[in-house]
Amino acid sequence: MAVIVQKYGGTSVGSVERIEHVAEKVISYRKQGHQVIVVVSAMSGETDRLLGLARAVQGDYPTGPELDVLLSTGEQVTIALLAMALNQRGCKAISRTGPQLGIKTDSAFNKARITDMDAAGIKALLAQDQVIVVAGFQGLDDDGNITTLGRGGSDTTAVAIAAAITADECQIFTDVDGVYTTDPRVEPNARRLEKITFEEMLEMASLGSKVLQIRAVEFAGKYKVPLRVLSSFKEGEGTLITTEENQMEEAKIAGIAFNRDEAKLSVKGVPDQPGIAAKILGPISSANIEVDMIVQNVAWDNTANFTFTVHRNDYNRALEVLQNTAKQLGASDVNGDTSIVKVSLIGVGMRSHAGIASEMFDCLAQESINIRMISTSEIKISVVVDEKYLELAVRCLHEKFDLADSIKEE
Amino acid sequence: MAVIVQKYGGTSVGSVERIEHVAEKVISYRKQGHQVIVVVSAMSGETDRLLGLARAVQGDYPTGPELDVLLSTGEQVTIALLAMALNQRGCKAISRTGPQLGIKTDSAFNKARITDMDAAGIKALLAQDQVIVVAGFQGLDDDGNITTLGRGGSDTTAVAIAAAITADECQIFTDVDGVYTTDPRVEPNARRLEKITFEEMLEMASLGSKVLQIRAVEFAGKYKVPLRVLSSFKEGEGTLITTEENQMEEAKIAGIAFNRDEAKLSVKGVPDQPGIAAKILGPISSANIEVDMIVQNVAWDNTANFTFTVHRNDYNRALEVLQNTAKQLGASDVNGDTSIVKVSLIGVGMRSHAGIASEMFDCLAQESINIRMISTSEIKISVVVDEKYLELAVRCLHEKFDLADSIKEE
Repeated sequence: MAVIVQKYGGTSVGSVERIEHVAEKVISYRKQGHQVIVVVSAMSGETDRLLGLARAVQGDYPTGPELDVLLSTGEQVTIALLAMALNQRGCKAISRTGPQLGIKTDSAFNKARITDMDAAGIKALLAQDQVIVVAGFQGLDDDGNITTLGRGGSDTTAVAIAAAITADECQIFTDVDGVYTTDPRVEPNARRLEKITFEEMLEMASLGSKVLQIRAVEFAGKYKVPLRVLSSFKEGEGTLITTEENQMEEAKIAGIAFNRDEAKLSVKGVPDQPGIAAKILGPISSANIEVDMIVQNVAWDNTANFTFTVHRNDYNRALEVLQNTAKQLGASDVNGDTSIVKVSLIGVGMRSHAGIASEMFDCLAQESINIRMISTSEIKISVVVDEKYLELAVRCLHEKFDLADSIKEE
Repeated sequence: MAVIVQKYGGTSVGSVERIEHVAEKVISYRKQGHQVIVVVSAMSGETDRLLGLARAVQGDYPTGPELDVLLSTGEQVTIALLAMALNQRGCKAISRTGPQLGIKTDSAFNKARITDMDAAGIKALLAQDQVIVVAGFQGLDDDGNITTLGRGGSDTTAVAIAAAITADECQIFTDVDGVYTTDPRVEPNARRLEKITFEEMLEMASLGSKVLQIRAVEFAGKYKVPLRVLSSFKEGEGTLITTEENQMEEAKIAGIAFNRDEAKLSVKGVPDQPGIAAKILGPISSANIEVDMIVQNVAWDNTANFTFTVHRNDYNRALEVLQNTAKQLGASDVNGDTSIVKVSLIGVGMRSHAGIASEMFDCLAQESINIRMISTSEIKISVVVDEKYLELAVRCLHEKFDLADSIKEE
């Protein structure tokens, strides 16, 4: 008998019929003898409806403590309906809001972080041989105010509960059936991974593979909570996210992520002197624009070329800021490009396998794909290429690194 | 500077515009220097929407603890929006759900009763010079479960808070501008009362004048909380419900209430012996049918005639039960009538003024209205007459007891 924390997102509980389907799923786990805690999100559409009400009062960008009081009702509706559906089917269940479960957070309204919870209380409820249905995404600060964890925070609630009570597994049910080597819409041969490490998953998530919330993965990694992503709608084992020690085989590469949302900006011929990077990026960050990749090259004439990427939505503002800075620095030219894409190879195997970067560059060169920028970390190599090469780059790398067939689908 | 608890019902907060109107109203009281606690209901329509969801899961008659978890979200949405609207207008406000405010109840889900609340906590929040916006209708039982007080329970929440912190006045804002001598749709000369006693109000409320929840009036009477009914939409003093000592003048009659929802059942010729009433009413009450008026007459032949009234919705079931009982008792006849109405004169002045009953019967006789049943209490005389005489009876009594003009409208 295992203790399992399950999380079902907004789409999985988007109607009464779907909530009843979740109830059946939970009951199937109970019948296998497991203890189950279910964390749910608001029914899909509900959060937007509530935000619409808030906008009518507060204007376009609602914020502040009362927004959390408002939004947290969304999950509360779901827990009541799911607990009803379980009890209706003879499966004893009790619902709990975040505050009821003693989930404590800091006071960063709209994006609070969990600081503590009443693990003993949760265990006492479990000991009464019932399913606990928990409202994700919410808690209470030290002054007794309702807080929310921000969009997607239900994943974090599930992981935090699993960590607090040392659950055997935290299962995140979603509308995909696992984590894939890359996006199957780009590479039809993409394969579902049986396992992936927390570190790899973090890179996959932050690079645009939107299966799991980054904070939830960090949290799970920190507390070593085995995390499984699986489908609400389709049977299957999903993908287990776990620590490196548990990897059965050591694949060099776990997957290929890509990100279409970036734009590139360059400034040429700035004086090559200490502090130049800060002079260029300072005004960008003062304008509240986040920078992702940064590359600096020295030219022969003692000037430097400086290139960085930002989110496409920030491109026009960043260009304006950069043009001002360039003028002050006496730079020779500023240019930018929004038709780029970042493609990344991710895998903890890189640590022990040399030469992966050159294999990657070789592969792209054979397809005549020009690399615009390169950036590497311990378990990731990212390149920026022209957007038109995205599909070609992903497919040739997927083949080169044997991602399609190293593990057979069961 | 007074401490005022205000309650706004579902219609008063039925849209964002109306919530903003309530915010303006609250601010006008703040500007007069008062401290204000606002108790609100769910936006009109919201409770029905939530009940619809519950029905989809539980069937036609949703019930149980999870229903309270579901329904209590309705008020939570309102408190968030109202607190936002107040803050938006520069009036410092904080929202609190029932559980947050430490409102404790028993565990009678769907119709719980308030047992305690954290008065010190409420005073501490007030001391921070802000409006407290409270979700009515809800609390927490001793096991930490969310409970609701049943429909209309927000009135009770408001009165209970006023009692706990010894507020100067509890104001119930509604869609009528006060308590009237009778229903103005029946008697256009009906007059708004400036004051009425708790006891009179209880009789008015229980007899179909649906301005206030009966439990709230009982509660206010018990703790001597001055209660005022006034309109959300129209300026005015409303009606103050208070203890008898505070009555400025002692009117004989406060008002005339009536109830169209009853039906009359009679059984004739039952043996006039001890225990006969129990034998007749026992099976009715076993069938979960509530009985209102009961009259028993002895005939000349040592048999008795027994008449009682029930809610019209229960009439058919009650008739069936009564026919069975009559057969067993050897009664000579059973009959019933759904075209009746109960008309009642209410007033604490009856205690000191003799002869009001005969004045009432006289008045009805002059209009040739036949009285079918009579029942009296210390401050009330009720008669059952044919439904077709309702308007005539109310108008002649209204005139007879000078209800139209004893106090001038301001």
